[in-house]
Order: sequence, then structure tokens, then C-alpha cells
Amino acid sequence: MKYPNAIEKLVKSVQKLPGVGRRTAERYAFDFLLEWENEELSEFAAYLTEVQSAVRKCTLCGALTDATDCHFCADQTRRRDLLCVVSAPREVFSIESTREFRGLYHVLGGLLSPLDGRGDEILELHKLTSRLQSQEIKEVVLALDSTLEGDTTSLYLKQQLEAYPVTVSRLAFGLPVGSSLEYVDGGTLARAFLGRATF
Amino acid sequence: MKYPNAIEKLVKSVQKLPGVGRRTAERYAFDFLLEWENEELSEFAAYLTEVQSAVRKCTLCGALTDATDCHFCADQTRRRDLLCVVSAPREVFSIESTREFRGLYHVLGGLLSPLDGRGDEILELHKLTSRLQSQEIKEVVLALDSTLEGDTTSLYLKQQLEAYPVTVSRLAFGLPVGSSLEYVDGGTLARAFLGRATF
Repeated sequence: MKYPNAIEKLVKSVQKLPGVGRRTAERYAFDFLLEWENEELSEFAAYLTEVQSAVRKCTLCGALTDATDCHFCADQTRRRDLLCVVSAPREVFSIESTREFRGLYHVLGGLLSPLDGRGDEILELHKLTSRLQSQEIKEVVLALDSTLEGDTTSLYLKQQLEAYPVTVSRLAFGLPVGSSLEYVDGGTLARAFLGRATF
Repeated sequence: MKYPNAIEKLVKSVQKLPGVGRRTAERYAFDFLLEWENEELSEFAAYLTEVQSAVRKCTLCGALTDATDCHFCADQTRRRDLLCVVSAPREVFSIESTREFRGLYHVLGGLLSPLDGRGDEILELHKLTSRLQSQEIKEVVLALDSTLEGDTTSLYLKQQLEAYPVTVSRLAFGLPVGSSLEYVDGGTLARAFLGRATF
């Protein structure tokens, strides 16, 4: 027995979300139909149609902004000699929430993944190197995933940036804060030992 | 650091979905913003605004329909002496998918839950009893959750329906098909023993 057409179309749309299978999509669709106020649905629909025009990527750094100027590039209180490289726009917000970084950002187009056929064109390296040429950047901090793709990309960038007069650094590896040694994997523990510091 | 306003509003809307916390809502919002085609978003927005007017509950049985007549009540090939009672509109589709039931449906307004302050007014019992008076129903099958609320409601309905000339039956308890004994809980196993049948 198929659902009424309007429900079926909704389910199909919802299923495009990451990690949402048929079951979850059905659950969401019935929630929309039976639990949401009519105004809540219209509001949500309006946000969906507006979000892509309200938010854009900064052409210089790639971070997301809803202002004419990029929030980060335009902020004169930020250090302009320090550049943090991330792989996706959302990660800028993760780093901002730490309040530890007050430099500029650079968002890559993605991470290298030879297995998925993503070569170095995805990095849009020319955007990064042209900033190194035109801006007074002294240090580039690579803040990429600690995965096969992230590590590969970090290594590749390190090599590519050797030609420029910048220090290339990378986020520290070690124990996640609040973790119990029992649950930390061997690789992390090994890196935590190697990176141990005087206490 | 807060997200741009348009993203924040989207996150807040998405968070109203069942089982969706802040993290998942952010993930969905960024997917809408960065991964969805503009037309996919408009389409989804249109489905959301249309679904509640396109689908309605049958005033007689409570099942969902997008036709003028209720798909189930109007179907003359279905047995009209057999009535299956469920607690929510969606469950009608679950039962239909088994292809085991060819009678009529009756959807309650919900399940009794004294702890949450849901008393018998939620069952809308008068709708059910008026059908028993006006239609030629001989058997009522209670197809409710096997939970505290479902069991309480089944028991209550059994008592309330004693005054009517109908057989009241209930779904069988036993092993879920495809399950390994090792993983079946004691309560289920006990019910499976009690309900054992000649093989």
C-alpha cells in the first residue's frame, strides 16, 4: 500500500538529507503532516527557499556570510598574518566557537581523495596561493580532519606551500579532553606520547 | 559565534522534528544550504505547504486519504464485518503492507496514559461505539502497541466493548519473525510459550 501522493513526495524529498533512510523520512513526513502547525510549515518552507540567497560564500576566504562584506575578512581586529585552512564552510564556525583563533580563514573546496577520484583540482589551490602572494600572511595553520583524506591533503599542502615564505603548522594530536585512557585508540595514544610536553 | 540568521532560523525549524537535536539540525541545515539544488529546495518547500491540505483524515475511520472518499471506507471489496483498531493514522499503512487484513479500520485519537495525563477522552470512544451501532461489525481486532499505554488501552476497550454484540480480539504475541532466541526478552519468550500451537 503506497502512501497518499503528497506524503510520498515529501518522503522522497526528506530522504535526500544525509543519513536519512526511508524509515526516518516517513517518520519526519508524518510529523510534518500530523504534528506541525500550518504556520510552522509555511515558516520552514520560507526559510528553505530563502537560505541559499540569504547566505553566500565569501569569494576571498570561502566562509559563509549573510552580510555584504565577509564577517571575517572585514574584521580589522583579527590578526592578518595568520591563516587557518579548513575543508568546509561549517568548520569555520566550529573553530570560532573555541574562541582560540583570531586570524583569517581559508576554506578549501574539499579534501583530496584518490579513491573517490577527487584530485588536487578540488582544493582550488590557486585561491590559497594568490592570497599568500597578495596578503601579509606569515603562518598557515592546517586544520583538517585527522582521516586518510585529511592527512593526505595536509601533506600535499605542506609540499605545495614550501615555495612560499610562510610557516606551515598543523593542529596538535593527542587525547581528546575529558576522555578516559581506556577508551582512547592506540594511534591517538601513540601521538599523545610523541607530543608530550613538560608539565 | 552564531551562524548567519538564515541558517539559525532553519536549524530552529528542523529541530522541531522528532529525535532531531541541535547537532543533527545543524547538519541538515548545512546540507540544505550547500548540497541541495535550488529547485530541490523549492520543491520540498512546496510539498511542505501542500501536504496538510492535500491529505485529510476520514471523518468516519480516521485513516488518511487524498481522495474525496476514504480509500478504505469506500472500498466495497473489503470485509465490512471486521474492524481493526489502531492508535495512529500511520499504523494503517503498516497493517496494509502486510496484505493480511481486508477489513475496515478505526483510528483512535491516541493511547491512554495516566502518567502523561491522557485519560479516556483521547480515545474518542463515541466514534467507535457509534460505528458498532450503525455498521454490521462482528469482530473488533485491537492492534495496539505492546507497551504499558497500549496494553492499558486494549484492556479498557475490551471492557467498554463488552456491552456490544461483537467479538473483541487482539494481535498475537510471540517471537518476532527472523529473531534468534538468544536475543528475545523473557517476557516475549513467556508469551510465545503460552501461545504455542500444534505444529
